[in-house]
Amino acid sequence: MDNRAVGIFDSGIGGLTCVREINRLLPHENVVYFGDTARIPYGTRSRSTIESYARQDMNFIRRHDVKLIISACGTVSSIMGARKDYDGLPYTGVVIPAAQAACAATRNGRIGVIGTPATIRSGAYGKAIRAIRQDAAIMGNSCPLFVPMAENGITSPDDVVVKEMTARYLKPLKKENVDTLILGCTHYPLFADAISEYMGADVTLISSGAEAAKYAQSLLTRMDMLTGNEENGANTFYSSDSADMFEENARLFFGGEINGSVSEISMDELIEG
Amino acid sequence: MDNRAVGIFDSGIGGLTCVREINRLLPHENVVYFGDTARIPYGTRSRSTIESYARQDMNFIRRHDVKLIISACGTVSSIMGARKDYDGLPYTGVVIPAAQAACAATRNGRIGVIGTPATIRSGAYGKAIRAIRQDAAIMGNSCPLFVPMAENGITSPDDVVVKEMTARYLKPLKKENVDTLILGCTHYPLFADAISEYMGADVTLISSGAEAAKYAQSLLTRMDMLTGNEENGANTFYSSDSADMFEENARLFFGGEINGSVSEISMDELIEG
Repeated sequence: MDNRAVGIFDSGIGGLTCVREINRLLPHENVVYFGDTARIPYGTRSRSTIESYARQDMNFIRRHDVKLIISACGTVSSIMGARKDYDGLPYTGVVIPAAQAACAATRNGRIGVIGTPATIRSGAYGKAIRAIRQDAAIMGNSCPLFVPMAENGITSPDDVVVKEMTARYLKPLKKENVDTLILGCTHYPLFADAISEYMGADVTLISSGAEAAKYAQSLLTRMDMLTGNEENGANTFYSSDSADMFEENARLFFGGEINGSVSEISMDELIEG
Repeated sequence: MDNRAVGIFDSGIGGLTCVREINRLLPHENVVYFGDTARIPYGTRSRSTIESYARQDMNFIRRHDVKLIISACGTVSSIMGARKDYDGLPYTGVVIPAAQAACAATRNGRIGVIGTPATIRSGAYGKAIRAIRQDAAIMGNSCPLFVPMAENGITSPDDVVVKEMTARYLKPLKKENVDTLILGCTHYPLFADAISEYMGADVTLISSGAEAAKYAQSLLTRMDMLTGNEENGANTFYSSDSADMFEENARLFFGGEINGSVSEISMDELIEG
């Protein structure tokens, strides 16, 4: 038993899809979340900048007495590769959980991956899938406009811009006849309806944030690190830009008001660590 | 006479439209440019985060022996308001130069302004225009997706996404019958063709970056601060993310290879100042 919190971070608010799933699967756990809203997006930046931001994010999360760090950011997860701990603390990203789910779901062995430019460039999903299923055929494409579209509320499947960008980004994967598609960035579930409409209902969509939450559940269970708390856990949110903006935008991902306090932290607090 | 360089900064590469114009108007001047590519975009962040980034950017530029600081970022310029100096050093943003040009250009006194959410929220262009022409009617709208579209090369006037987003953002201004439109963010000149096509050829577009360059020329002339150099000046570029990425993306704004060296600076160097 371990009553410390589960630490989750993301470049912004996309990782809240993971928090929501942790709350659902493990309602007694406390969650500490950090969203780096002052520096989002990560996925269009260079590898070394992403590495340095990720290190600062994890050091910040570490300082909150957590038992597990989840990177709920597809971009950071891709760059961290297959690592299982951060400085002695259990760690998981979204890549391996999503790769496992995709390998379990595919019937024809043809798996598509969409993500940010940095994620696709890293090849991390491909490596993780092939480690499980050597003969899988993997097709990736980056969708650089999906994060800003999501952050600006342009997600409706009836919106012509959503339809057009979805078709543009997914056409090469559809042509390759994938039957399973990893939404390799935690913002992308907001486009699930549009993507399903374009790809067809028989293509299984894998939400990387939700899979990371399931993976964390089995990890904590296996390591006997679940909380002993019997009442409901609490969420504590931190953001590097305005707490009000965080709260407002968070509704999109949380499907309603977020249940927990939000505090803005200064850049000094973030970088010092 | 003053042989120090002209300092120009922006959240990213949009400010290069201003550098290009300075090079054309004042070919003997040396230019030092900083683009905060590790933290772009600014215009969707909170006021206090933008203020703190702007301070760091200006302190960095100050350390390079410059005689004038130009904020070639519409968002920063809006938040800095009408100030004329930064810590004793002459300063200009893009707002006042663009407001002056718009007031000179308009025939019907109806002026449109497009910019980032932070720019439009600030009302800075409206204040600057009314200070010159009290009876002007001013209509503003924010275009949050234009910066990421520009940064991802989605700018062609034939692209359906460009056509659709242009129409969506500009429809309220067209309805108000503006005859002059300020492109209040230095990324927006990349959409000039699409915007002209939608608004009609009789609407005058004001490029805020280019106007800031003209304004700087008249300021330096008036203050007798032009360089005495007789050979061509040099450009020196700094970016907070990868220099290679900067160089590659810069072509879009420069209309070809940029003429000057690019160096990446560390976040520590930027924040220390």
